[in-house]
Amino acid sequence: MPEPIDFYFDFSSPYGYIASCKIDGLAAKHGRKVNWRPVLLGVVFKTTGSAPLPTLPLKGPYSVRDFVRTAKFMGVEFRQPPVFPVSSVAAARAFYWLEEREEARAKELARELYRAYFVQNIDISGVDEVVNVAGRLGVSAEELRAALNDPAVKARTRAEVDGALARGVFGSPYMVVDGEPFWGCDRLDQVDRWLATGGW
Amino acid sequence: MPEPIDFYFDFSSPYGYIASCKIDGLAAKHGRKVNWRPVLLGVVFKTTGSAPLPTLPLKGPYSVRDFVRTAKFMGVEFRQPPVFPVSSVAAARAFYWLEEREEARAKELARELYRAYFVQNIDISGVDEVVNVAGRLGVSAEELRAALNDPAVKARTRAEVDGALARGVFGSPYMVVDGEPFWGCDRLDQVDRWLATGGW
Repeated sequence: MPEPIDFYFDFSSPYGYIASCKIDGLAAKHGRKVNWRPVLLGVVFKTTGSAPLPTLPLKGPYSVRDFVRTAKFMGVEFRQPPVFPVSSVAAARAFYWLEEREEARAKELARELYRAYFVQNIDISGVDEVVNVAGRLGVSAEELRAALNDPAVKARTRAEVDGALARGVFGSPYMVVDGEPFWGCDRLDQVDRWLATGGW
Repeated sequence: MPEPIDFYFDFSSPYGYIASCKIDGLAAKHGRKVNWRPVLLGVVFKTTGSAPLPTLPLKGPYSVRDFVRTAKFMGVEFRQPPVFPVSSVAAARAFYWLEEREEARAKELARELYRAYFVQNIDISGVDEVVNVAGRLGVSAEELRAALNDPAVKARTRAEVDGALARGVFGSPYMVVDGEPFWGCDRLDQVDRWLATGGW
């Protein structure tokens, strides 16, 4: 059985969202599964000395233009959120809590959260919004609210981010295929060929 | 007559080199010319607060891997230079000096300089190396040496870099097609479709 693809992403990352719409289909074409791993770019950037794209001189204005254009180029529905970027801590914690119980539903939640932020432009930084979005999948509001305050869930999320950093993850999306790292939704074409050929 | 594509690049940029191997062919397919514009990322990074890729935590080691992999993916001959990055001031000045006299030959010189650095791994930061490489095209060593010390050539180069910055150029390669900016050799596929469709 071939190894799954590790797919690291931040819930506030447009390029992560674009990749999330493609990665499972791409992997399935090659008989692979995908291991979804939300990270927190805010934490990652403290290590790398980087900053959110929109805050960068010249690159910031370009980036927003590129988000919209690249989403259209790749056939992905996208609306630039008016509040951007936002904290994705609550979303990541909800994901890891649900994943321990039901892996498949955690992935559904991730898709729903991404769609809420990048299509419906709901600010998913708030606990209320995350709970509402999870409610669409039948997740109990009471249980999720408790989980988001649970020190074990917080620790688990932090450990996942630390583990990603230790592995070299510095951006979103970041995909690892049989040990080979690929950064950016513009590397999906290389991932595709890597899976087909086993590298080059 | 449609507008030429403006192609900004740094002589020390691997992604700029990769794009340089493709851009004229891509443009010709759509009946366009390409206006080659060397810039100096060292100057650009002072404005943007960025730094050369290899110096960045985590992103640095990834990048060198990605240079090699992306060159192979795109079918471009490439050897990572042992000294990297290097100053590209002499190369840029040589280009702009030659361009004022013979535009076509300046583009030939640019290709030859890129090939010297990224295939033959000649450190093109030195005046001697730039003069040698230009000599392959029959450029007079004496005239070029004088030009590289000419205040007018220095001022011209600086004005080109300032003009690029004023236009928003923050990296290499950076292409402008009918006013639309594209950053990175991984945007050539978007440039291709943009030229075919006039945007989307």
